[in-house]
Amino acid sequence: MPKKQPDSPWAPATERELQRKLKREAVLATAAQLFNERGFHATSLDDIAARLNVSKPTLYYYVKNKDEILIECVRNGLQMMTEGIEETRSAGGKAIDQLIACIRIYTRIVTLDFGMCVIRISDDEMPADSRAELRRLKSGIDLAFRRIVTEGIAEGSLRPCDPKMAAFAIAGALGWIGRWYESGGDYNPEQIATQYTELLLGGLLRSPVAGP
Amino acid sequence: MPKKQPDSPWAPATERELQRKLKREAVLATAAQLFNERGFHATSLDDIAARLNVSKPTLYYYVKNKDEILIECVRNGLQMMTEGIEETRSAGGKAIDQLIACIRIYTRIVTLDFGMCVIRISDDEMPADSRAELRRLKSGIDLAFRRIVTEGIAEGSLRPCDPKMAAFAIAGALGWIGRWYESGGDYNPEQIATQYTELLLGGLLRSPVAGP
Repeated sequence: MPKKQPDSPWAPATERELQRKLKREAVLATAAQLFNERGFHATSLDDIAARLNVSKPTLYYYVKNKDEILIECVRNGLQMMTEGIEETRSAGGKAIDQLIACIRIYTRIVTLDFGMCVIRISDDEMPADSRAELRRLKSGIDLAFRRIVTEGIAEGSLRPCDPKMAAFAIAGALGWIGRWYESGGDYNPEQIATQYTELLLGGLLRSPVAGP
Repeated sequence: MPKKQPDSPWAPATERELQRKLKREAVLATAAQLFNERGFHATSLDDIAARLNVSKPTLYYYVKNKDEILIECVRNGLQMMTEGIEETRSAGGKAIDQLIACIRIYTRIVTLDFGMCVIRISDDEMPADSRAELRRLKSGIDLAFRRIVTEGIAEGSLRPCDPKMAAFAIAGALGWIGRWYESGGDYNPEQIATQYTELLLGGLLRSPVAGP
């Protein structure tokens, strides 16, 4: 029978890995919050460390540098959008209902810190070597909206139009929410999504059949 | 009779002033073009000088630094928008027609170099001391759209909605054009404006009265 080893003062490797992952996520979440509050350029690693009550050297155990943080924040936001849209798509149903669901999901995500980073940080602020990957994710989201519109036209629920223009108009209108939204404002994300759905689907014109 | 003075090899002061103004405008126009092509951060004063076939020191006769160029480019774009909207407003007429005209003007301007700078350069990239002025211009444009929508609801042409949300949705959809537009693409600004007007005013839904 092997001799029992003395207890190690360190947690097991898997436990340490999990702790590291959780702490890394906290670094990213705090960074995203600060980028949205102050802007990317005005936020330093010192600011991020201070809000987390750690020293700047501690941060380097979880992230390489500010650029890596930036990429991860934008990537997280884009992945949330991608997954939300994919879930809606794979649930199936009428294109018009999928469109309404995707408007709701997109609106909610651009009001969250990672989603806001997607909107507020422009491509030319991103490190050159990660632009291609992030553009691929963005173009996947754009393509999904175009497909939904195409299917909506085919099923007869949406007006015949160029799906590319419609997808751009939708993405522009919804993306802008990530610029002006402040939590605690007039409307919560759910209420904003409801109003945007009415405006985008029904249009600004007073419907001729809605009169007295 | 005073003795005739010898001809000066320098142009008269007013002529020199005019020349200086024109050259300054050329510096700004070239800078705006480069910012949109490469991004603000990736564009140097050397790049601007090279495209104008002058030396960098020559630029300093017309502008203080890159920040001043940036501010002037964004200010020019915002002033074009402000003036376009004001002209439409002062011409009077139905709010719905003013809205259509303003959508057309805004679309055209965000496809021009100065207008594109308004869209592509984010507030936190702007020097802190000019943010307030540029925000004032932006908020004037937002307010004009809200007023037009308010009047449109009052005259019965637009659907009852929160004019603030409607103005944000319009500005978001149109502003995004300044991100994806490339001259020589599928549509010219006029064609884009026509499609966006249909989508924003008529909505994405196939109208129930348009069926067979």
